Amino acid sequence: MLLITDVTAITVDARRRIVTDAAIAVDGDRIAEVGKAADLTARYPEADRLDGRGMVAIPGLIDAHVHTPQTLLRGVADDVAWRPFLEEFIWPLQGRFEPEDALASIRLSMLEMLKSGTTCFVDPLVHSRYDVDGLAGAVVDFGLRGVLAKIVMDRAVQAERTGLIHPGMLETEERSLAEAARAFERWNGAGNGRVRIWYGPRVPREPVVACSPEFYRRVADAARDFRTGITVHLAGEREDVAFFRREFDRLPVEFARDNGLLGPNVLLAWGTHISEREIPILARSGTPVVSCPQPAMKLGSGIARVPEMRAAGVTVGLGCDSGANNNSLDMIREMKAASLLHDVARLDAAALTAEDVLEMATIDGALCIGLEAELGSLEAGKQADVVLVGLRGAHTTPVFDPVSNLVYAAHGGDVDTVMVAGKVLMRGREVLVADEEQVIEEAEKRGRSVLERAGIEVAPRWPVE
Amino acid sequence: MLLITDVTAITVDARRRIVTDAAIAVDGDRIAEVGKAADLTARYPEADRLDGRGMVAIPGLIDAHVHTPQTLLRGVADDVAWRPFLEEFIWPLQGRFEPEDALASIRLSMLEMLKSGTTCFVDPLVHSRYDVDGLAGAVVDFGLRGVLAKIVMDRAVQAERTGLIHPGMLETEERSLAEAARAFERWNGAGNGRVRIWYGPRVPREPVVACSPEFYRRVADAARDFRTGITVHLAGEREDVAFFRREFDRLPVEFARDNGLLGPNVLLAWGTHISEREIPILARSGTPVVSCPQPAMKLGSGIARVPEMRAAGVTVGLGCDSGANNNSLDMIREMKAASLLHDVARLDAAALTAEDVLEMATIDGALCIGLEAELGSLEAGKQADVVLVGLRGAHTTPVFDPVSNLVYAAHGGDVDTVMVAGKVLMRGREVLVADEEQVIEEAEKRGRSVLERAGIEVAPRWPVE
Repeated sequence: MLLITDVTAITVDARRRIVTDAAIAVDGDRIAEVGKAADLTARYPEADRLDGRGMVAIPGLIDAHVHTPQTLLRGVADDVAWRPFLEEFIWPLQGRFEPEDALASIRLSMLEMLKSGTTCFVDPLVHSRYDVDGLAGAVVDFGLRGVLAKIVMDRAVQAERTGLIHPGMLETEERSLAEAARAFERWNGAGNGRVRIWYGPRVPREPVVACSPEFYRRVADAARDFRTGITVHLAGEREDVAFFRREFDRLPVEFARDNGLLGPNVLLAWGTHISEREIPILARSGTPVVSCPQPAMKLGSGIARVPEMRAAGVTVGLGCDSGANNNSLDMIREMKAASLLHDVARLDAAALTAEDVLEMATIDGALCIGLEAELGSLEAGKQADVVLVGLRGAHTTPVFDPVSNLVYAAHGGDVDTVMVAGKVLMRGREVLVADEEQVIEEAEKRGRSVLERAGIEVAPRWPVE
Repeated sequence: MLLITDVTAITVDARRRIVTDAAIAVDGDRIAEVGKAADLTARYPEADRLDGRGMVAIPGLIDAHVHTPQTLLRGVADDVAWRPFLEEFIWPLQGRFEPEDALASIRLSMLEMLKSGTTCFVDPLVHSRYDVDGLAGAVVDFGLRGVLAKIVMDRAVQAERTGLIHPGMLETEERSLAEAARAFERWNGAGNGRVRIWYGPRVPREPVVACSPEFYRRVADAARDFRTGITVHLAGEREDVAFFRREFDRLPVEFARDNGLLGPNVLLAWGTHISEREIPILARSGTPVVSCPQPAMKLGSGIARVPEMRAAGVTVGLGCDSGANNNSLDMIREMKAASLLHDVARLDAAALTAEDVLEMATIDGALCIGLEAELGSLEAGKQADVVLVGLRGAHTTPVFDPVSNLVYAAHGGDVDTVMVAGKVLMRGREVLVADEEQVIEEAEKRGRSVLERAGIEVAPRWPVE
């Protein structure tokens, strides 16, 4: 038994309690109890102690949409729209990734996430060529939770013919599906359930359409058979809506509905241009959405109807998307951005409150991945994924409401301690599960090597002397 | 002579150079030279050294609009629009400030700014009752640069009659002007020029109109006599535009033009609702504007035409505004927010680039306060206000373009070293000019005491146990 003592616990449980002078009792990989420190220290006098003074304890943050390979590509494609972003930078670069590059990038991503309080993430597009085994094994070793959605597609040949996508980004139908099935059998549930394998069909989007409608239905069937999840980008860009209308006479969510891509096990990503009319379809079908506010801002893509979706009962998680378009995987900063963006978009200061975005980053993230019984809040019986955030800095003083200071004032650098499944992965910002310097150096080296291989030079735009 | 060695210097000088393996030679309070480390170490073999390995050197950030008293009120009024923000929280609280509260708050503000790389700030509304001498003295002692705009007004009686503003926020015409003149004589140029005293007339805004048009003209004359600056809030809220139209048959900038509030020595704050039509008037008159993106987002106020103003040749600085509506004084995070907000507002990923916002936070901030010959860039002859930011963390790896990583990936917590006027105020995040713990404790205590005095309870919105 381990007691995290003298924290302010922001539980995000059903009663959304804040427990001051709290303790969290951790038994093995689970939370045994959340209560007053005085009570718990009396009840468990022999327990080990972890001092949480001056800190808030929150449920581990869940980044429900993050392309881990792109962390290696931080800053390669700033201030460009989504088409050049993908066609001129991300695809030619990621298409040339070797397994070691993907490995270096997922390790860098996990290090960044760990250091900013993210304990669980969804990578929506894991390629066979990145070596799924290597990536899944890295998640097991590192200690975080990862939902790895194996990329699948059936129109690689047609996609390649556009000349817009690097062939390295494509896989044949049978290989992609077989590898997904194999990865599922081998890795789903690994690391005491920390690894999950999902399906990640490519986005239904012009000009590179790598999946047919029939294929989405086939994937939906396969996911049902495996009782696993699917995540797919939908309506992230304005152009997507025109595409669905023209090609299928459907709105994006209507297309998803007609092709098996709705339901509690399907996580729709971005959803920036989902219209009012489509929201009830999401709500009725219990389909969650993950919003990526800063990437959608930085690419100039648009503003999702997050408050409207939440009001309609749609679960909306939060994602950082990519080191290459965010360029940060800091969920604390993403929470603030989400709140502020929707406030100004609706000219309503309460459109998304601090509490709303904290829910999005915790319990709603758990709902996005169907793990709300295990993750997303601090309560007895759930997995002990606990993050301690220091609020004793100048920039987080005074503290009248810890939720406010956490969301609006703090940043990922204030995360002090991270526990996943009862295991302390970081304490006092010291990473206990990886050689931080080595991860950073390897990523720096691999990043440069990928650029070189692709013949893409990324130089500062200001003259260098 | 002191040499900052082995940094990557982002100069923001006229040529916007980035010097790799650079050194910055500091002689007294000024920069003697920026060049290659190899050259400078050979030239100044006896100079003291300050190792900048793994860091970028940037000009000290300039927060051109920050209400330092409100840092004590962090988190007291989240998720509300500007009228309840001011009328129900800020005014009744600030109106009850004692000099010690303002002092605790400016010290907390300076500590937060120092720790996030801000070396110079403009406080737009310094009240007599806060004890101007105490505040100016605190700036001198702390070591930052502060432009303190002494609040002035002529319609305190009428304003008080609205019943909307706490009388503690008001001063009589003669007292406010006399105190401004006295403060100017006593403090302008103090601390070797680090303190400047400006005029801060109250915002021309309903429903609390505390200045007459004639008074603005009087203030403009006084500022001209003293050869000093004025800063005034203008068109921050939608309602302001309607007010100027109805009351004066003018747009806000037209009103400013007709009443002495334009020119290089007048810094207009917020400007959220300055229209296309008004921008040429600003440009022709050389009037700078300071934009506060996150506060305008959080209050649901709107989005300023920053790219349009910049394109027209208007100088636009950047401000964090307030611990109570931002709730952060971190200019690095503010830069990212500015860039992303305008990208999504214009659906143009290049609307405001990383380089643009870095200019806003440095050289354009210097232009905002008429100190562009002294501040805002790293170049020989200017004041040695130098900030070193570490880019060796997981969240700032890899580095292909240091400007990108600084703006989009880093946060204030990555600031390692801060020098103002050649004096090192922080090194390795250790604050050398104040007792950090003491400043934080005093602010926490004073903040609670102000709330108590005002009878305003700020409790978490989630139930506390």
